[in-house]
Amino acid sequence: MRVFIAGVDGYLGWPLSLYLTKRGHEVAGADNYYRRDWVQKVGSQSATPIRKMTERLKVFHETFGKNLQFFKGDLADYDFIENVFKHFKPEAIVHLGEMPSAPYSMIDVNHAVWTQSNNIVGTLNILHAMRDICTDAHLIKLGTMGEYGTPNLDIPEGCFEIEYRGRKDFLPFPKQAGSWYHQSKVHDSNNIMMACKIWNLRSTDIMQGVVYGNRIDEMGGVEQLVTRLDFDQCFGTAINRFCCQAVIGEPLTPYGKGHQSRGFLPLRDSMQCLALAVENPPQSGEYRVFNQFEEVYDITDLALKVKEVGESLGLKVEVKNLENPRKEMEDHYYNPDHSQLLDLGYKPTHDISQELKIMLADLIKYKDRIESRKEALVPDILWSGKREAVHYLKKHK
Amino acid sequence: MRVFIAGVDGYLGWPLSLYLTKRGHEVAGADNYYRRDWVQKVGSQSATPIRKMTERLKVFHETFGKNLQFFKGDLADYDFIENVFKHFKPEAIVHLGEMPSAPYSMIDVNHAVWTQSNNIVGTLNILHAMRDICTDAHLIKLGTMGEYGTPNLDIPEGCFEIEYRGRKDFLPFPKQAGSWYHQSKVHDSNNIMMACKIWNLRSTDIMQGVVYGNRIDEMGGVEQLVTRLDFDQCFGTAINRFCCQAVIGEPLTPYGKGHQSRGFLPLRDSMQCLALAVENPPQSGEYRVFNQFEEVYDITDLALKVKEVGESLGLKVEVKNLENPRKEMEDHYYNPDHSQLLDLGYKPTHDISQELKIMLADLIKYKDRIESRKEALVPDILWSGKREAVHYLKKHK
Repeated sequence: MRVFIAGVDGYLGWPLSLYLTKRGHEVAGADNYYRRDWVQKVGSQSATPIRKMTERLKVFHETFGKNLQFFKGDLADYDFIENVFKHFKPEAIVHLGEMPSAPYSMIDVNHAVWTQSNNIVGTLNILHAMRDICTDAHLIKLGTMGEYGTPNLDIPEGCFEIEYRGRKDFLPFPKQAGSWYHQSKVHDSNNIMMACKIWNLRSTDIMQGVVYGNRIDEMGGVEQLVTRLDFDQCFGTAINRFCCQAVIGEPLTPYGKGHQSRGFLPLRDSMQCLALAVENPPQSGEYRVFNQFEEVYDITDLALKVKEVGESLGLKVEVKNLENPRKEMEDHYYNPDHSQLLDLGYKPTHDISQELKIMLADLIKYKDRIESRKEALVPDILWSGKREAVHYLKKHK
Repeated sequence: MRVFIAGVDGYLGWPLSLYLTKRGHEVAGADNYYRRDWVQKVGSQSATPIRKMTERLKVFHETFGKNLQFFKGDLADYDFIENVFKHFKPEAIVHLGEMPSAPYSMIDVNHAVWTQSNNIVGTLNILHAMRDICTDAHLIKLGTMGEYGTPNLDIPEGCFEIEYRGRKDFLPFPKQAGSWYHQSKVHDSNNIMMACKIWNLRSTDIMQGVVYGNRIDEMGGVEQLVTRLDFDQCFGTAINRFCCQAVIGEPLTPYGKGHQSRGFLPLRDSMQCLALAVENPPQSGEYRVFNQFEEVYDITDLALKVKEVGESLGLKVEVKNLENPRKEMEDHYYNPDHSQLLDLGYKPTHDISQELKIMLADLIKYKDRIESRKEALVPDILWSGKREAVHYLKKHK
């Protein structure tokens, strides 16, 4: 299948290009390298030393014996997308090309406005280009489980039958996102749902949990093929950040009480699920939602798991809760459905300890890279709008 | 109360400045005259001859003996809003400053992108400026009943208690808007809801029905104080457009089968309701939704009402259904709640015939202005993305 990956230079986009190529798909990708810029702007760098795109492409060719077709450009530029689609004629479009950080979007009004404009415009451009150039293609759009927030109800996958005052309808589940970034994904979802309805486009909207891990088998141990791994307060997600903290001897820092529950999945499972979505397209006109995660975990339990695995590798690891810079519920009901990908054949990895062991062993090699940017680990972007470092909580596990 | 009106040069904004001033409020307003530009760009003009802002302000002062404080500028410019809020210190902010047309947003990708960016950015800027300058002020934001779409359920005002798999929560009602414009208002609503939650702002989100009419008593028959009245395919709403068609002897054109049900209200009721919202602010941190309309009507019934009143004034009026340029349900359940404004004391006008009589009598004076732009009445912006004039349906009332 001809698969186009928007955001192919990113944490997920790069390994997905390897994964899909290995499965025999013809892959093209686009990027404008913004992720590299954002991480630099917040004073950090990828823990893993990622290569320039020219080198990535060269090693890609050496490894797989075929080219990754790469287009440098911005999804906010409609002409760029139009040209790429006309040239490549994608059958599937995996849209990973958005600004993915909640704290970054909460820095100030400029970051809020930029995040929402950038994300919404890119998706609107893709939808219009699909309508006009490849109506039959399948859009796999990366959303986030964070779109739902933490309602006191089970969370279905996208839509659900609702009964109200004696009448019934099948409607989208109400969303309560908690940052300008998360809201931008809610806006995207609403826009995509409408485009499927009025233009008969087909789309899978992926509500993805928190991804962790740095390797997939398709990298084959080639160091130039590793993907980025961020640990700063903006682009570092929980488990990846914990592992980086463990490696440099800093305390692991769940926010607040630390009983937030979230869906998590290793990088290799994210690849597996995205490929399943690509290879099993919905009907024309269908807007389909997958809740994509392996299992729900309590964030503190995961920190303790990192501690356990870290200590087995000889690291000295401490867990110290931090004041929560976010405004979110810290104790809540959480029970999202996630059966659709399992029905398509998703085989969850389950073995978190093994995954953490691989990641920690790799990261130890890059200890100096993390150490040299450790200030970027400390959260100082508050949901209140203030910018000040938060403190450790008195009582902690 | 110090009330700031964003979009004070528009159809609702201008009369609201008169209405609130007459009620003793201190009113300021901002505009960048975009509405005048948009209507010109789609080849039309206001049926009523509206004056330049300088003349409007002069006559305002002569009529009310006080100034309307006017700021020319763009809500997309954060510094502009910041300066206005610092200077005027609003206690209430009525945000009418968005691009209000569904067809305009559906013209092409540029109009879709512009509509959503413009509307979302303006609202995000206002929210941030409120947080930093006037946290205690009350945002009255103009949304639209169109945000809800036409679900097969009763529509509550904003949020509702939902029971699902044996658990309960109070959640926002799912929205299914049908144009990029309507979606932009859904995005705004989601953003505002979040801002109230994380920053303790207070807001009333007005889901307004279709407004018709051209006069309110506060204009006192002064011709320089009339508000604009659009009839083109983009900015002319149903009843106003029907009246303009009646005046120039063109058939009234419900779209499709013409059994779409919508909430409607006369301009004077819209003013009454907005003033009630301004004068009865919610609690700090509260996000409140009002469904603002007088009653639900079938669009063809209203066309026939215009025909009846028009004929009583000696006009020859025909109703001819047009192919529907939109993608929408033409026969559907529709039962939205609208009790909150009634609870606050809203006295609905109810007398549609009287309202239509005033409007038609006024519009007859401007027959030539409508006649000279009558091409703009014909819809050719299709939801499919095509641009071609639609035809009359064979069978019509």
